[in-house]
Amino acid sequence: MKRREFIKKAAAGVAASTVFGPVYAQTRRRFRLRMATSWPKSLDTIYGGAQDVADFVKAATDGMVEIRPFAANEIVGALQVLDAVQQGTVDLGHTASYYYIGKSPTFAFDTTLPFGLTVRQQNAWWYFGGGGELMNKFYADFGVIGFPAGNTGVQMGGWFRREINDLEDLKGLKMRIPGLGGKVMSRLGVDVQVLGAPEIFPALERGVIDATEWVGPYDDEKLGFHKVAQFYYYPGWWEPAPQLNLYVNLKTWESLPKDVQETIKSAAAAANVRMMAKYDAQNPAALKRLLAQGTKLRKYPNDVLREAEKQAFELYEEMASQDKTFREIFESWKKFREENYRWHATAELSYAQFAFPKV
Amino acid sequence: MKRREFIKKAAAGVAASTVFGPVYAQTRRRFRLRMATSWPKSLDTIYGGAQDVADFVKAATDGMVEIRPFAANEIVGALQVLDAVQQGTVDLGHTASYYYIGKSPTFAFDTTLPFGLTVRQQNAWWYFGGGGELMNKFYADFGVIGFPAGNTGVQMGGWFRREINDLEDLKGLKMRIPGLGGKVMSRLGVDVQVLGAPEIFPALERGVIDATEWVGPYDDEKLGFHKVAQFYYYPGWWEPAPQLNLYVNLKTWESLPKDVQETIKSAAAAANVRMMAKYDAQNPAALKRLLAQGTKLRKYPNDVLREAEKQAFELYEEMASQDKTFREIFESWKKFREENYRWHATAELSYAQFAFPKV
Repeated sequence: MKRREFIKKAAAGVAASTVFGPVYAQTRRRFRLRMATSWPKSLDTIYGGAQDVADFVKAATDGMVEIRPFAANEIVGALQVLDAVQQGTVDLGHTASYYYIGKSPTFAFDTTLPFGLTVRQQNAWWYFGGGGELMNKFYADFGVIGFPAGNTGVQMGGWFRREINDLEDLKGLKMRIPGLGGKVMSRLGVDVQVLGAPEIFPALERGVIDATEWVGPYDDEKLGFHKVAQFYYYPGWWEPAPQLNLYVNLKTWESLPKDVQETIKSAAAAANVRMMAKYDAQNPAALKRLLAQGTKLRKYPNDVLREAEKQAFELYEEMASQDKTFREIFESWKKFREENYRWHATAELSYAQFAFPKV
Repeated sequence: MKRREFIKKAAAGVAASTVFGPVYAQTRRRFRLRMATSWPKSLDTIYGGAQDVADFVKAATDGMVEIRPFAANEIVGALQVLDAVQQGTVDLGHTASYYYIGKSPTFAFDTTLPFGLTVRQQNAWWYFGGGGELMNKFYADFGVIGFPAGNTGVQMGGWFRREINDLEDLKGLKMRIPGLGGKVMSRLGVDVQVLGAPEIFPALERGVIDATEWVGPYDDEKLGFHKVAQFYYYPGWWEPAPQLNLYVNLKTWESLPKDVQETIKSAAAAANVRMMAKYDAQNPAALKRLLAQGTKLRKYPNDVLREAEKQAFELYEEMASQDKTFREIFESWKKFREENYRWHATAELSYAQFAFPKV
């Protein structure tokens, strides 16, 4: 079409566009779906991601599709969400894929790895860097399909009862830290402990453990660690961008009409950006409150960071040599990470270095 | 309900949840809406945000709601999108609100300000920090409602034909830089030029201007600036997180059923996170290609950054003293910025400083 013709036709369409089209009847089905989550409702940021998906889907479908989220232990335990979705006990799950690295180390890529991607890089990898396709090819074997549905950003590096001035100070230290972070800490000489949320505070209070990590100011404050440990370390190098995942049972997914699938996908993406925004809106005031109560901020010494990074990548190479799927994804991920790190080291990092205050 | 009872009822619901509810007829209306954008289709990242909204809404409504995006100049010019939405010439617009600071300086807050918020902070402010409410209260006077629908991240600081070693080198330099960035540059002694996209390359090539800014590697490469200017500066301190906006005519919005409104909101949030991810996925390779062709990366000297920040905030105070609405939003925004900067200076910044390479 020639430019002039086009403009003429476009102009003719103006009036029509404000008169809505014909009303007509459409047959739609009602869906009542259940979603297990790994979170207590008290963690309103992370549980809020699950609630956000449910709310968006319900509102966008005029109540035709209702997803009911359940807190951890209401239907299944926090770490049984994948199994529950896979077996069809529930239709959907909101969880962190790295809870399931016991089944396969590849699950880690859909949450975070020590010295891995930042939030923006994780999103870039997942949506446009091939990550989403790789993960969902992997998930098909577990009978689920997954979508990013939240993030916490770089977490804090945990609560310590005494200062860590160098690598030596970590030797023999009893720290609660699960997952790959725990594996790296163990390589640094830490006596790694794995405790569920309710056990951590009493263990730290009684000195059964010397340190624990959790999430960041807003969530940590609720668990009260600042009352029994003075030093609050950063950064949480083992969790630079923990992504939360929406899992859907693959058979359920395939039985859903395309429009319902798309509504769920769009709701997950909305929950993804909103959870990160909620953390960023809540953490500053929480950090301020903690500092006012005597918490002392400390940065991990450089020799700890350097050795941790070295050990992390040695660990990944070992894992890659033992697991073909892990290796395939690791290679894509590692290349993506290197190129993105270089780009983010220019405009983003230099802006932050100049503009943010010294702490 | 007691825990045991609850679990019993939940378990009883398991079977029911996999059997879908009754099929029934629902009356829905068809909507054909038009969206003007400020972008040429060749900018697939930024125009892609508009397309993403349209695609998501169409797919999620099984084609019942079709939004047709138009490139700049197909219906109205790049800078007439707000007017077109306000007047109902189109139903929606995808644009950058700071194009309209001539109408009111308050529009700037919904895109970006020199030394303002980063992407995550902009999202936090908008979704959970009161920013969205403040902006939409302001937009009501213009007959539109707005939602974040994309971001570019910290932009690059532009292309220069010669190096800038200190503040002195900026004096009298002819640079194409519009908006508030231009106002700050002008206070630094720059001879500020405002040119439309097609005019920039020839002006830079012939030496009519000494420098120009645009977006970042992926978009800049398409305009070919690297062929006529060697030095590529960072960071683009005047645009730390330019947010793109989805505007909807307020009368159209109010006439839409709630489910369609919610579908559009969810699609805008999805487009928001996806556009940033697309830039982050594309920029690294583009930067690599530019460097391979001889582009030289340069960081703005610290004295330039310091003086620019000082001038920017002096400018905001002047604007606040002249405009009540600007002042009201500026005060909320400034407080939010300070607290968020402090939080982001801990875990996020220290992680990036350690992990990203030196460039």
